[in-house]
Amino acid sequence: MRTRRSLLDLDDLTAEELNFIFERARSFEKQPAPKRLDGIACVNMFFEHSTRTFTSFNLAELRLGADVVNLAPKDLSLATKGESIEDTAITLHAMGVSVLVVRHTEAGLPARIAQAFDGHVINAGDGTHAHPTQALLDIHTLLEEFGDLHGRTVAIVGDVLHSRVANSTLRGVLRLGGNVVLVGPESFLPDAYAEPGVGVARDLDAVLGEVDAVILLRIQRERFAQLPLDERHYIAGYQLNRKRLLRLRPSTIVMHPGPYNRGVELDESVLTYAGWRYASQVMHGVAVRMAALDLIVNGITAC
Amino acid sequence: MRTRRSLLDLDDLTAEELNFIFERARSFEKQPAPKRLDGIACVNMFFEHSTRTFTSFNLAELRLGADVVNLAPKDLSLATKGESIEDTAITLHAMGVSVLVVRHTEAGLPARIAQAFDGHVINAGDGTHAHPTQALLDIHTLLEEFGDLHGRTVAIVGDVLHSRVANSTLRGVLRLGGNVVLVGPESFLPDAYAEPGVGVARDLDAVLGEVDAVILLRIQRERFAQLPLDERHYIAGYQLNRKRLLRLRPSTIVMHPGPYNRGVELDESVLTYAGWRYASQVMHGVAVRMAALDLIVNGITAC
Amino acid sequence: MRTRRSLLDLDDLTAEELNFIFERARSFEKQPAPKRLDGIACVNMFFEHSTRTFTSFNLAELRLGADVVNLAPKDLSLATKGESIEDTAITLHAMGVSVLVVRHTEAGLPARIAQAFDGHVINAGDGTHAHPTQALLDIHTLLEEFGDLHGRTVAIVGDVLHSRVANSTLRGVLRLGGNVVLVGPESFLPDAYAEPGVGVARDLDAVLGEVDAVILLRIQRERFAQLPLDERHYIAGYQLNRKRLLRLRPSTIVMHPGPYNRGVELDESVLTYAGWRYASQVMHGVAVRMAALDLIVNGITAC
Repeated sequence: MRTRRSLLDLDDLTAEELNFIFERARSFEKQPAPKRLDGIACVNMFFEHSTRTFTSFNLAELRLGADVVNLAPKDLSLATKGESIEDTAITLHAMGVSVLVVRHTEAGLPARIAQAFDGHVINAGDGTHAHPTQALLDIHTLLEEFGDLHGRTVAIVGDVLHSRVANSTLRGVLRLGGNVVLVGPESFLPDAYAEPGVGVARDLDAVLGEVDAVILLRIQRERFAQLPLDERHYIAGYQLNRKRLLRLRPSTIVMHPGPYNRGVELDESVLTYAGWRYASQVMHGVAVRMAALDLIVNGITAC
Repeated sequence: MRTRRSLLDLDDLTAEELNFIFERARSFEKQPAPKRLDGIACVNMFFEHSTRTFTSFNLAELRLGADVVNLAPKDLSLATKGESIEDTAITLHAMGVSVLVVRHTEAGLPARIAQAFDGHVINAGDGTHAHPTQALLDIHTLLEEFGDLHGRTVAIVGDVLHSRVANSTLRGVLRLGGNVVLVGPESFLPDAYAEPGVGVARDLDAVLGEVDAVILLRIQRERFAQLPLDERHYIAGYQLNRKRLLRLRPSTIVMHPGPYNRGVELDESVLTYAGWRYASQVMHGVAVRMAALDLIVNGITAC
Repeated sequence: MRTRRSLLDLDDLTAEELNFIFERARSFEKQPAPKRLDGIACVNMFFEHSTRTFTSFNLAELRLGADVVNLAPKDLSLATKGESIEDTAITLHAMGVSVLVVRHTEAGLPARIAQAFDGHVINAGDGTHAHPTQALLDIHTLLEEFGDLHGRTVAIVGDVLHSRVANSTLRGVLRLGGNVVLVGPESFLPDAYAEPGVGVARDLDAVLGEVDAVILLRIQRERFAQLPLDERHYIAGYQLNRKRLLRLRPSTIVMHPGPYNRGVELDESVLTYAGWRYASQVMHGVAVRMAALDLIVNGITAC
């Protein structure tokens, strides 16, 4: 059985593999998972601090019975002094490590490691580039809601330019036959982002009534200092709040990759909106990560 | 079977639950524990650095077969930037995490998390407020020694005002029918601490011959700088040393929550005193934490 | 069955125990290891940051089924404030911890802990003193290559004076009947290092054709600042490079404890040399650590 080498971006996955992940995730959500990573060594290399993605991967690995080693940002930076990250990866492979889960502020670093490492690399977020397992959980959430994305439209709202989540999720929605409308001010969303299946809109209010799902992006408050855009104007134009929720069709769901900034991209009323799917996303996160680990290590297999 | 939600302070436990914990701890100490937390995800959120309490909880969880994820102080502070701790807890619950073990310098923080988190929270020490599993291991040690606390008197000596240990253990001794005498200078022990079953004493030498157990508290040397009290005077009046040990009845035991400061609250002779029960306390610590975890997750069950 | 208390340096091991470790390591490399540390608590106390040795010990412990707790440098330094490391060790033993794996910049610290700790201590590197499991993996690599070290000569090249690896590996090679030639400039290698079975040489080029194995030591670039020796001169005289590789017999192997500094003690050509055994060393590292853990906990046993 051929196995996938790595999961660096969503484009690495064939349609068959994508389907496998969603089906396997569903099965992992229904019953206790078999120990499909028994005896497999996974090392989590989080160069960037994280609680949610770190915990989600840890739980996914432990539930599949893997041997899990966590390397902290400080260990990684000090202990690899004078050695390239690729050399560290080669050493870990020689030790019998099969899977590296890598998170780093530098776009492309997981891909560089994957070139050197003769096992499997999962990108757990690299700079503003990609975050494929976040995209998988977003799409899994959409599929659980709508069954199928054909003819569905997803709005992605916020700082698209700096979001690895937007990047990866957008690709996924398109591949599954859905449409995307990106919404935000020019500083966050250049016109050039428009392409077949992807619209660019400046007016959130005009978009809200037309879409099946709204994905809000996290706004880094620090960003405003460097932009010809202030927080107050952003909130006025793009915050999802009580008034704007009324514009949504009752069936429209709202998602967020987390952690969310209350009072910036959303206000409190969103957290009690009937279609708020944040908890489902997080829940699906563990299952799709388990499924992705199963796929890259064992290939497409019967359950 | 009803399960307990959280363990924030000793008062959360009914008399039946207290008894269950001590009996279950005894059984865990006699034979290898069954994997009663198999498939249960525990996250240790230690915002405060710790080796002993951290290791004790880790071992308790691992021995019960739990899936254990550790979040370090730095991860917690950086990765939750802009998000409230409650939001992090909600996210962890959505991920399938059942138990949070929380240690923090802020009194009341574990209770706040417990309000938001729809699973089980164990307080592993919050500021000067409470440290219920320390109290449980102290009382377990007393019960193993004396069988029953009725008519027994326990002296708690030191900086009672700033001690979460004193607070929690005092409640426990009273609930099991024992008496407490608090001993220390006024800066560490206001007169107002006296209540039914609880005496306040200034003269340690007068107390030593009258009690069944002495619990020494850790004295933080830094504290003296802010007080009208100097270390030399404290030691003269309250250090347990060779001379004072002679005042104890031969059956009196001496305890300490650790880590102890040799030369401050005790001198070396205490460490070889026949009734020194520090190692028993530490040993019981793992077992009562296992029992507490079993109780809050599974409720009162047959073994 | 008598069990070994600790592994602080290679000299702690009898000839029978050394043989046991290499045989057991071979068996662990051939088939999945039985859970010989099931229910055994191991605490990794890495006061010094490390990725490779830390990961290697973690994997060894997990594969044997141990309960593993990791204490980070920061936890260790802050949480033991005011308490001696020996007191921490005593506390961990009371908790039921059987094995401490200790890495520290201070030579002799693991031995001090072993005096206080009533379980097993493994030295995972202490200052410039010893690193016995590194020596074991080096010798295991040599044995796998040559079957037997009688009549074989191993060159150890570099900063011998500051290398715990050189120290421990040298002892091991001698004990197994091999010869050692130490090679380096005087600042790194005093004449006094010569002893029966151990030569001291200044001219690497003259040595290369005469040896069965070359072990390169890591050169800490910072060291040159304090020495009457500059990096350029060191490289000219002692770097293993394309030209020098030609002087080796075809059967000679090259080893390095890692992490290596490309461009200092070796150049890129070494990494593709047919006799480069770095990956074998790392691979054997996990197996000899498993075998050493098995030995100190269970004694010499049938598999």
